[in-house]
Amino acid sequence: MDGKGKIEWAEKNMRVLSRIRKRFEEEKPLDGLRIGMALHVEAKTAALVRTLVAGGAEVAITGCNPLTTQDDVADALRKEERVSCFARRGMSREEYYNALNAVLDFEPDIIIDDGADLIYLIHEKRKVIADRILGASEETTTGVNRLRSMEEDGVLLFPVIAVNDAYTKYLFDNRYGTGQSTWDGIFRATNSLIAGKKVVVAGYGWCGRGIAMRAKGLGAKVIITEVDEIRALEAVMDGFDVMTMDEASLVGDIFITATGNRDVITRKHFLSMKDGAILANAGHFNVEINVEELEKMAHEARELRPNLREYNLGNKKLYLLADGRLVNLVSGDGHPIEVMDMSFANQALAVEYIAKNAEKLEKKVYRMPEELDREVARIKLETLGIKIDELTEEQAKYLSDWREGT
Amino acid sequence: MDGKGKIEWAEKNMRVLSRIRKRFEEEKPLDGLRIGMALHVEAKTAALVRTLVAGGAEVAITGCNPLTTQDDVADALRKEERVSCFARRGMSREEYYNALNAVLDFEPDIIIDDGADLIYLIHEKRKVIADRILGASEETTTGVNRLRSMEEDGVLLFPVIAVNDAYTKYLFDNRYGTGQSTWDGIFRATNSLIAGKKVVVAGYGWCGRGIAMRAKGLGAKVIITEVDEIRALEAVMDGFDVMTMDEASLVGDIFITATGNRDVITRKHFLSMKDGAILANAGHFNVEINVEELEKMAHEARELRPNLREYNLGNKKLYLLADGRLVNLVSGDGHPIEVMDMSFANQALAVEYIAKNAEKLEKKVYRMPEELDREVARIKLETLGIKIDELTEEQAKYLSDWREGT
Amino acid sequence: MDGKGKIEWAEKNMRVLSRIRKRFEEEKPLDGLRIGMALHVEAKTAALVRTLVAGGAEVAITGCNPLTTQDDVADALRKEERVSCFARRGMSREEYYNALNAVLDFEPDIIIDDGADLIYLIHEKRKVIADRILGASEETTTGVNRLRSMEEDGVLLFPVIAVNDAYTKYLFDNRYGTGQSTWDGIFRATNSLIAGKKVVVAGYGWCGRGIAMRAKGLGAKVIITEVDEIRALEAVMDGFDVMTMDEASLVGDIFITATGNRDVITRKHFLSMKDGAILANAGHFNVEINVEELEKMAHEARELRPNLREYNLGNKKLYLLADGRLVNLVSGDGHPIEVMDMSFANQALAVEYIAKNAEKLEKKVYRMPEELDREVARIKLETLGIKIDELTEEQAKYLSDWREGT
Amino acid sequence: MDGKGKIEWAEKNMRVLSRIRKRFEEEKPLDGLRIGMALHVEAKTAALVRTLVAGGAEVAITGCNPLTTQDDVADALRKEERVSCFARRGMSREEYYNALNAVLDFEPDIIIDDGADLIYLIHEKRKVIADRILGASEETTTGVNRLRSMEEDGVLLFPVIAVNDAYTKYLFDNRYGTGQSTWDGIFRATNSLIAGKKVVVAGYGWCGRGIAMRAKGLGAKVIITEVDEIRALEAVMDGFDVMTMDEASLVGDIFITATGNRDVITRKHFLSMKDGAILANAGHFNVEINVEELEKMAHEARELRPNLREYNLGNKKLYLLADGRLVNLVSGDGHPIEVMDMSFANQALAVEYIAKNAEKLEKKVYRMPEELDREVARIKLETLGIKIDELTEEQAKYLSDWREGT
Repeated sequence: MDGKGKIEWAEKNMRVLSRIRKRFEEEKPLDGLRIGMALHVEAKTAALVRTLVAGGAEVAITGCNPLTTQDDVADALRKEERVSCFARRGMSREEYYNALNAVLDFEPDIIIDDGADLIYLIHEKRKVIADRILGASEETTTGVNRLRSMEEDGVLLFPVIAVNDAYTKYLFDNRYGTGQSTWDGIFRATNSLIAGKKVVVAGYGWCGRGIAMRAKGLGAKVIITEVDEIRALEAVMDGFDVMTMDEASLVGDIFITATGNRDVITRKHFLSMKDGAILANAGHFNVEINVEELEKMAHEARELRPNLREYNLGNKKLYLLADGRLVNLVSGDGHPIEVMDMSFANQALAVEYIAKNAEKLEKKVYRMPEELDREVARIKLETLGIKIDELTEEQAKYLSDWREGT
Repeated sequence: MDGKGKIEWAEKNMRVLSRIRKRFEEEKPLDGLRIGMALHVEAKTAALVRTLVAGGAEVAITGCNPLTTQDDVADALRKEERVSCFARRGMSREEYYNALNAVLDFEPDIIIDDGADLIYLIHEKRKVIADRILGASEETTTGVNRLRSMEEDGVLLFPVIAVNDAYTKYLFDNRYGTGQSTWDGIFRATNSLIAGKKVVVAGYGWCGRGIAMRAKGLGAKVIITEVDEIRALEAVMDGFDVMTMDEASLVGDIFITATGNRDVITRKHFLSMKDGAILANAGHFNVEINVEELEKMAHEARELRPNLREYNLGNKKLYLLADGRLVNLVSGDGHPIEVMDMSFANQALAVEYIAKNAEKLEKKVYRMPEELDREVARIKLETLGIKIDELTEEQAKYLSDWREGT
Repeated sequence: MDGKGKIEWAEKNMRVLSRIRKRFEEEKPLDGLRIGMALHVEAKTAALVRTLVAGGAEVAITGCNPLTTQDDVADALRKEERVSCFARRGMSREEYYNALNAVLDFEPDIIIDDGADLIYLIHEKRKVIADRILGASEETTTGVNRLRSMEEDGVLLFPVIAVNDAYTKYLFDNRYGTGQSTWDGIFRATNSLIAGKKVVVAGYGWCGRGIAMRAKGLGAKVIITEVDEIRALEAVMDGFDVMTMDEASLVGDIFITATGNRDVITRKHFLSMKDGAILANAGHFNVEINVEELEKMAHEARELRPNLREYNLGNKKLYLLADGRLVNLVSGDGHPIEVMDMSFANQALAVEYIAKNAEKLEKKVYRMPEELDREVARIKLETLGIKIDELTEEQAKYLSDWREGT
Repeated sequence: MDGKGKIEWAEKNMRVLSRIRKRFEEEKPLDGLRIGMALHVEAKTAALVRTLVAGGAEVAITGCNPLTTQDDVADALRKEERVSCFARRGMSREEYYNALNAVLDFEPDIIIDDGADLIYLIHEKRKVIADRILGASEETTTGVNRLRSMEEDGVLLFPVIAVNDAYTKYLFDNRYGTGQSTWDGIFRATNSLIAGKKVVVAGYGWCGRGIAMRAKGLGAKVIITEVDEIRALEAVMDGFDVMTMDEASLVGDIFITATGNRDVITRKHFLSMKDGAILANAGHFNVEINVEELEKMAHEARELRPNLREYNLGNKKLYLLADGRLVNLVSGDGHPIEVMDMSFANQALAVEYIAKNAEKLEKKVYRMPEELDREVARIKLETLGIKIDELTEEQAKYLSDWREGT
């Protein structure tokens, strides 16, 4: 058993991507292109890599997070033809950036990024290679936010497809994917019973909603913290308690951050937490829980179980999962396969779209073209054996006719 | 006990509107204005009317549906100062349009509409009074769709605020309001157990989601029909069965339409339904279930309980609720009070906004101004005693800074 | 439209009872027997009466609660052959007991009771007719508890079948029936949004569980109060808050009692409640909320809507539903039809069982015979078109063989 | 990081057992006793062992299943004073029975068993040591069923406390524990998305309910198979589809057995299943899925991921988790800690009870004494900081007084 078995299992269950791969094998839409990728290197990502290669591309890949690589999968990828893989679990910051640079040394025509570290590196240090880049696609909310800021500042050097903004990506992977896999990660790290626990979810965006929905489904009492009044009100109506983190820190048993922001849980919260409180992060970067402050406050810290670190604060102990990094990736296998199937189907179609439309695209952040987005949904429904209704001509007419009333 | 008691109870629980009313009483922002309204005339609407009058306006009101007026509330409104009320339950089509015309005879400066029948009447038959109208606000998805079509066709004669598109309206009233009140209406009409039933919800928009979510919460097995592939896929991931109406018609126990479209359930579906199937509509107009066809197919039809009509098709009997009109309004008290509180708070602020900004507005459909929308959310949270977090300066900076990465 | 239509609708949906009625029509197992009943007189009960009459019996019936009779149904019953009906909505206590006595004057052979008031009356005032009584069946937890106490005290004068203890009764009617219909009653009385509300349910027995489960399904935050530590712990694990009523009274928006006990909500709780709190009872007797104390504390009381009474306590107002009587029956149509179908199928079979086995039965409280109980379940599954597995011989053997291990 | 860290983490979260341990340390109620145990050897079990040793006992322990031992924990246990541990992961059948015999060679006074293999061994092969045994306690439904059969056959040689039947055990560990941990095991083995999947749960006992409830909470469509008509009907009312396994085998994506019976999924079901179907067992013994038949039908079988075995049936592939053994233990960490806390608190109190009452006990299967059961619940509520109501004298009197009525 090795990375190859994992990749086969992923491909078996990535039925949308498999269909696209078959078409790519015939049409070779990526022939002659070099693709540079920074994604979490695990089995589902390998299936995307193999799809791109099937389409004619050469691929260089590294991780987008120092801790989330699965080494057996990285090894299996290194054995694939036309694939270079630089990822390794547990890289230092320097090694991490060296690997990103190695991907760029490969002189890619198209970039696939997750968190925008690779694109940022081009803009800051390697502007010279930006010219040859036809375009990029970005996987995450966090990355898209960074890229939109760059666009607004007028510094973006090539077109980017915000794959994250595809309906078949963000409506599914952030909600159903993060929702489930965050709990998978917490289960593995803690073996804790969720039923009856007070679970504090920071942020009621798509990720936070998914985490909260599953927490409720697991029998927890859920508390939401938010900075947006409308989301806060939705959380109330969804049956959750809503309060400030200052208040929540006094009562929570498990804290999960999913805000995309920094310093959501800080020193003052560690001080007010109960003995035994568990802390996990589900946001892209490890800045949501201020681990540095926690380290400083602790007399002693030690790993009790894999990905479960005990901080002894004297009068109490707090438990941090996965060093405050993405708990679903570090302490689990990341998103469920079927969710990444849709996300990576979008990635494959986005790359094909860039390849075919490069000359038309400007140095902007583009939404995923809706017809491709809907194509992913249609294939997915087909693989599930589900048929849906179609508008009749009369119905379509009715919808657009403002004369119809009482 | 009469309409007055109902109105008092509504006002007791419309805490956001009550705050706005207090401010209106002091500031009189609507002094001298005439407001013409077509809304479901029941207790919550009366609270809105009284808020507008408190702000200095004169009001003329009628129903926006021939069957949804609560006569005791209409009577109580007629006793209010500076209010004319033309609504009565069970109006004929002619009487309904006479009442709409009576509201226009009153020469309103501002219109509040629900479904756009009143605005449509102005555009078709009474263009001459359009000139004096400063603007209008529209309550429903259906109405806003009609008005957007009019705008696109270039025929819209005055500005309209799409109150329906306020977050604090459509995210709440369509989902939590219709979701609950549809079941209230079905409970009253049928006394049926929902647990264990196969409930078919046509449409997975905000209304359909709410109805499906509550059906699940009541123990039903829920089947969704959709024409949109992405919504269909969301329904799958939310744990519901998704199929065509042709398939669903064979297995459903209770059918609820919430599509905003016509002919969702038609002759062929009546033919394939099981004996005893129950049909209800939660969409704005009574065109979703083709009642005319059902009437033709039946040997006999009779009312077994209030709002429950039996159609004898020979080999089976089908049961239509509320004549295929909005089941929550005809067989219940419409939306829960707290939901209309937020919707009507938006209405009150929209009217004030039109009054203050009339000269700046063009003949377009405007989204509800976001600052007013958020104001409603803020007041609502306050009335619930809920505090939420605020972004620190550092956090706000972090969110807009694309240089922050791994 | 009258009581007859309601009864037809009930019978249409009581498919288990309908099958039993067909058999009764053929077999006439109750020929020549007189049955005295005290049940909530509404459409479903009428279907039971008509089933017993179809089996050959004569029936005299009155209500088991002064406020729960539906007069149109009572009128329709009075037109049935071999049925005497003494029930009327809104009886005084004296009239209520007069009607119970009228049922006994009819000299019944078999009693069907709901709460045990009729049986208690025989034991206290009319012992002389006890001799001719073959047996009785009792519908409720409350009634069965009273009868078990009588049995323990050695005073029970005839056999009683505890229909309440049938699995197909108490597992379904208390949980799914009360669970749903309590909310039906609250919807009608209040038009309140449940989503986001803090709902306090007193008692986590089968009724309380049902009410809490549906409250959660409607989007509420649920708080449970209990006196039993194990039930309290189950409520915690089911995701609910558990606290004392003293604590809950400070935070609840809606209070629902379902304990079968008295004085669950009393003066001290009224004092600590928030302005606008709503009080409802779902337990059999109107002793769970101490209405007398509330009356004394209020400066003024008035009915704002049907079944919604406002108590002005000076610094705040509290709202009592249905005078503290069973909110699902007084402010609604009682249990959903399908639930009463199973309960009354048990009643019909219990009466048949008494008729056939009278000489064998002792002056005890009997559990519903399990073979009849399972018969109800089997018919119910059949009417739903559901097939289930059967144990193979080998499986049955495996289950009883202790030698099978690792 | 080793077994010791895991044990510390378990003990940190086993707050009920910790309280008992403190008392045991002072009172030494087990002084001089030898306890022989066959339980899944992992961190929570180690905490029980350490509690018994704290009470004065010597302990010999082995596993109750060849595949569920965690070797690092077994190693840590071997370093404890007064503990002998014979368990190792992946024992052959012969080694498994050798280890059981080694525990008996230790001449225990009291037995703690899980599945009754150890007790069965005494009765079949080592009757001679039965005389010195004061009593035993049994952890599982499966074991208690075996022991009840032995009692009925009149062959039981010493008293047994059915710890499984304690409310604080079976109401919690089977439902909330198996419910959650089965999904933990499936997550780890498959990385599959549960939302939108058709999950077939065989058996709607406490385990099946828990698994189904959590499947629903994870967004699955749940199908139940049952042999008991009343449980089947409960499943219907809980919103699940109910059908035979023959029917379910055609549509299911994931199958989970929890019946306590054999041959629940057999050859004919494998034949009708869809390509890619996943099979898991949550029942005590690996007889529910007929793995032998599956092995015979497959052309090829191989492990794709840890605990995920692919069977190639030519026209399709099926995937078996954890070799058909308890998926939560083999592919996870078994029950959540907090659930085992209550179960093992019962075990500790049961052992103390046997020690103190040995002479009074007969050769029977005893229910866990209710006062000890309630003691566990009370301590658990205390550790959660939860207070509950107490009956007043008047209320207690009311409950027992049958004269109280309308």
